[in-house]
Amino acid sequence: MTDFTRTRALFDLPEGVVYLDGNSLGPLPKGVAERVARTVREEWGAMLIRGWNDAEWIGLPEKVGNRIAKLIGAPKGTVTVGDSTSVNLFKVLTAALSVAGTRCVVLSDNGNFPNDLYVAQEAVRALGMGYELKVVAPEAVEGVIDDTVAVLMLTEVDYRTGRLHDMKALTAKAHKAGAITIWDLCHSAGALPIDLHGADADFAVGCGYKYLNGGPGAPAFVYCKAEWTERAAPALAGWMGHAEPFAFDLRYLPGDGISRMRVGTPPILSMAALDAALDVWDGVDMNSVRARSLELSECFIREVEGRCPRLELASPREAARRGSQVSFRFKHGFETMQALIAAGVIGDFRAPDIMRFGFTPLYLGLDDVLAAVDRLEDVMKRRLWEEPVYAVRAKVT
Amino acid sequence: MTDFTRTRALFDLPEGVVYLDGNSLGPLPKGVAERVARTVREEWGAMLIRGWNDAEWIGLPEKVGNRIAKLIGAPKGTVTVGDSTSVNLFKVLTAALSVAGTRCVVLSDNGNFPNDLYVAQEAVRALGMGYELKVVAPEAVEGVIDDTVAVLMLTEVDYRTGRLHDMKALTAKAHKAGAITIWDLCHSAGALPIDLHGADADFAVGCGYKYLNGGPGAPAFVYCKAEWTERAAPALAGWMGHAEPFAFDLRYLPGDGISRMRVGTPPILSMAALDAALDVWDGVDMNSVRARSLELSECFIREVEGRCPRLELASPREAARRGSQVSFRFKHGFETMQALIAAGVIGDFRAPDIMRFGFTPLYLGLDDVLAAVDRLEDVMKRRLWEEPVYAVRAKVT
Repeated sequence: MTDFTRTRALFDLPEGVVYLDGNSLGPLPKGVAERVARTVREEWGAMLIRGWNDAEWIGLPEKVGNRIAKLIGAPKGTVTVGDSTSVNLFKVLTAALSVAGTRCVVLSDNGNFPNDLYVAQEAVRALGMGYELKVVAPEAVEGVIDDTVAVLMLTEVDYRTGRLHDMKALTAKAHKAGAITIWDLCHSAGALPIDLHGADADFAVGCGYKYLNGGPGAPAFVYCKAEWTERAAPALAGWMGHAEPFAFDLRYLPGDGISRMRVGTPPILSMAALDAALDVWDGVDMNSVRARSLELSECFIREVEGRCPRLELASPREAARRGSQVSFRFKHGFETMQALIAAGVIGDFRAPDIMRFGFTPLYLGLDDVLAAVDRLEDVMKRRLWEEPVYAVRAKVT
Repeated sequence: MTDFTRTRALFDLPEGVVYLDGNSLGPLPKGVAERVARTVREEWGAMLIRGWNDAEWIGLPEKVGNRIAKLIGAPKGTVTVGDSTSVNLFKVLTAALSVAGTRCVVLSDNGNFPNDLYVAQEAVRALGMGYELKVVAPEAVEGVIDDTVAVLMLTEVDYRTGRLHDMKALTAKAHKAGAITIWDLCHSAGALPIDLHGADADFAVGCGYKYLNGGPGAPAFVYCKAEWTERAAPALAGWMGHAEPFAFDLRYLPGDGISRMRVGTPPILSMAALDAALDVWDGVDMNSVRARSLELSECFIREVEGRCPRLELASPREAARRGSQVSFRFKHGFETMQALIAAGVIGDFRAPDIMRFGFTPLYLGLDDVLAAVDRLEDVMKRRLWEEPVYAVRAKVT
């Protein structure tokens, strides 16, 4: 069992705020500021170039990768960290296509994070070769997996509704049809138990700054099943993935295992923050996190439906079919969310009408959930979405 | 004129060290630690997700891009920052090829940083289409630019010898032959005057952590001539380059201008460090930097040749043909550099036999150069390369 009172004390949260947006940007774990300061002054400042060896910067991508591997059911040595989720997705998509033979279809769904479709759309265009991106409704995916599909590329948890795909079943179905799978775990890693190895997943990518609390734009992770790392060749490669980066051979020769998914020099300050942020997972059991997450989200749904009847549940009602977030639809969702944020409850809004709330047991309890609903009910009763001040759109919503 | 006494005071350099490796990792500028600490605690910690708007994280890539633009002769709005140099090179190479018509040759030279050849090798392989990477000797480049060349991809300053390509002349030659140019400015930006606009360069990339002092693995920059941003399509694209990233359309529609060279979420902590590091350039005239750099390197060459006869100059003797570094060949260069570092003079080694010394006038003066040669002479006279302790190879050399 996980002691959530202990984990909550590991975060620096602003006074008076109920933070239900850890699925977008995790809050600051207590050890991070000190670690980053040390990396700046004692490593970069004092060691200078020697930091690559003396502070072991060079090994950080694999060190942090192995820490994340434990949270996503990946064997040691199958995960590395660096670049953004988008860049990592591009690597694994082009790697998967490099071993997909004559098949041409990249299959995804319209509940995927649009960015993933953008990456695939432009990759497919650039690679030519007859590749095509096929996008269907989430519930239609299973039925259209056939022997034309080269790659099944899905996000496990829908960024808007929290709907959860069945990774194991869809991977099995894809494999039976001879397709390769790519799973985007942005809204899964740190949110629920994942078993990449057990599901026999081929490739996966995910985010360091949501449930893993690595800080804004934290480096992302990339997973490859061991058998693919030796065969699949991403279109994007660089010296950090070379077998001998400092031999400076003129020919690219990929390194062993997951290291070939590295490309350029990783951003060490951001990487150090993510490494320190992962300390909060020590001693945490992901099944406890999942159980508590569902307890929180069930309570939230029950209370909101009872007290805010204008809001319509957009997430699956069945707990087992949801990730760790709950969304409600409301025509004035944007303005309402702005009013709620002004009242100290931070969730977010996704166009066109989704109010999104993330549940993160490491630092949220039932008291927070109830306080959030109290304030939401107040916003709804006072029809604060009608106040012009809450209609102002900032660049990032 | 630049006041180098003032700029030197802007850096935190360890006591007793002469740092001649700013061409590999620039030292810590004084304002950076405080800025990063503020970004961690007051922005991420206190603002949480609101930092994207309230701390203007979302605009950092273009803000920092415009600051770098001033240092490389690029018009405002033609440079953005994010990802690594390698990833940016991949973007501009695939973008250039997307508008290269039926031409197939990517021309580069064997003095290029091997990483750039790796990026091109794997991109060309993945894109197929008959593309080929042609690599010739640096001095042969000019003679083989013909109407088969789609893209001329060069690094302005050779990472080993400091040899300087003539960007303006080679770009003009390439354009005359109908080819597009990509310049890697990793060893140029912050080292010498660059005039991308004046040279009519098409694309450029470069590094934030060398002469720009942005910290280990700092985000890199990417430049596109305005006419290309509307036409050239990189194979790698993502939501941050979308015309409306937060509209969450399912189709990718590239944003205006340089913003389409953005892909995923940028690493804000590392980006903040780079932004703060660029403060040291306020009031600095790049022609003064160049003049002082040559003064330092001329002195270094003269003293080393006079006092360390076993070392053979590997850099062009003519100052105008060098960047801001000087290299010497020596069979026992690796061990000698280790001994020199132990004696407090930090340069670096590049296989097979290059001892490399970077000259960075912002924080180095003639006193440092003379102190470095004193210690080098001592290492050479005492034949310290014969000490077994200096033969130990760390992961990064």
